Amino acid sequence: MKNYRILVQYDGTRYKGWQVQKQTDMTIQGKLQSVLEELAGHPVEVIGSGRTDAGVHAVGQVANFHMDGDFSNEEILEYLNHYLPMDIAVTKIDEVDERFHARYHALSKTYVYRIHTSSIPDVFQRKYMYTYTIPLDVKAMKNAAEHLSGTHDFAAFCGNKKMKKSTVRTIFSVSIEKRENEMFISYTGDGFLQNMVRIMTGTLIEVGNGTRTADSVTEILESKDRSKAGYTAPPEGLMLKQVDYAAVVSTK
Amino acid sequence: MKNYRILVQYDGTRYKGWQVQKQTDMTIQGKLQSVLEELAGHPVEVIGSGRTDAGVHAVGQVANFHMDGDFSNEEILEYLNHYLPMDIAVTKIDEVDERFHARYHALSKTYVYRIHTSSIPDVFQRKYMYTYTIPLDVKAMKNAAEHLSGTHDFAAFCGNKKMKKSTVRTIFSVSIEKRENEMFISYTGDGFLQNMVRIMTGTLIEVGNGTRTADSVTEILESKDRSKAGYTAPPEGLMLKQVDYAAVVSTK
Repeated sequence: MKNYRILVQYDGTRYKGWQVQKQTDMTIQGKLQSVLEELAGHPVEVIGSGRTDAGVHAVGQVANFHMDGDFSNEEILEYLNHYLPMDIAVTKIDEVDERFHARYHALSKTYVYRIHTSSIPDVFQRKYMYTYTIPLDVKAMKNAAEHLSGTHDFAAFCGNKKMKKSTVRTIFSVSIEKRENEMFISYTGDGFLQNMVRIMTGTLIEVGNGTRTADSVTEILESKDRSKAGYTAPPEGLMLKQVDYAAVVSTK
Repeated sequence: MKNYRILVQYDGTRYKGWQVQKQTDMTIQGKLQSVLEELAGHPVEVIGSGRTDAGVHAVGQVANFHMDGDFSNEEILEYLNHYLPMDIAVTKIDEVDERFHARYHALSKTYVYRIHTSSIPDVFQRKYMYTYTIPLDVKAMKNAAEHLSGTHDFAAFCGNKKMKKSTVRTIFSVSIEKRENEMFISYTGDGFLQNMVRIMTGTLIEVGNGTRTADSVTEILESKDRSKAGYTAPPEGLMLKQVDYAAVVSTK
């Protein structure tokens, strides 16, 4: 079997998230697997760099899968894009070392949360942004974001109450860019817990609107208590932008 | 009555075009009128700078309407964006001279046709582009475009066979920009006949793929025969970008 790495983009609006579920066939992983299984003639497990929540988008999700057959990379790419729904696309494919694992070998991920700060809509981007028109204090948000950077126990920012594994993660950077009618919050880290980016975003918004102080972020982290953090910002504003790997691992 | 000018954007995918029709309520003009009539309590005619075809988008359509009532511009703008469907938005409103007419006073319009030249999809832009993956000779297309510029009888580029008015129009410029996976053809002119931009685009594509020569455009114009020109490129690639007016006419 060959091991293939793919770069995947999707408009998450219609989907129940990345991960296959018994109750629905509307998952990204499920759609990819069923097209690949049709091509390969055997079960295929598509391993994503991580799950994305229902409604979250991706422009640079990375996944790998093992498959039999004498197909060229171009043939697999064309087959996928022909049979996948219009809101899922595979933009790149490589054959990689058989040991490459999209989740285990990911070194960092970058998510971007997009906030539309004007009451004037943008019809072309409407599905990829969260409209929030209360004025936000960007300076306070940047101060709060600094407290999030670094290695912390992010239990207070975890949406999964039954999480049994470690909730320690390292955030390499949080940057906030304000444009005329938009705000982009970019998070790069070694990994993110369930809903973590959306809870961090909701918390930063609450700092921005004056509900809480920038320094309160430290207290939230120390509390390890989900109820102390801010609300979970809605999924439509969130985009998985990029997943990075050590070069040595990835290409054959 | 006051006369208002609005800047309108819409994702035309779901609509039967700009103009009100008896058979359907899915028109841009119809949606605007019904929201404004609800606000005003009297019939309102929304006059667009021109019609756009079914499925064509706009980021800068201009329209005007006369309306009673003591509303501020902000109130009208908020009301419109609150009650319009998510794929239509009004991004600007001014009160203008009572004589201002969005169609009669338009000096020029700019349309942009977007061609996606790669077989790799772009899921976020998929509804706003025409995918055409046969290689296109951009130099030949630019030569052909030069023949379109100027004042000509564009009868051969008119989709309405029953057109009784003049089919003479002036095109100020046609520019073609090639990027990695995209081609943008921009047309600026004093006005465009029904389907004219799409027929010019289909013709330029046929020049680009070698089906016809750049010089044939002159013969097509001279023939005044629709069957001599190229195919009508699909609506989803077309966007009304901008409508220009003489400054003196427009603002009170």
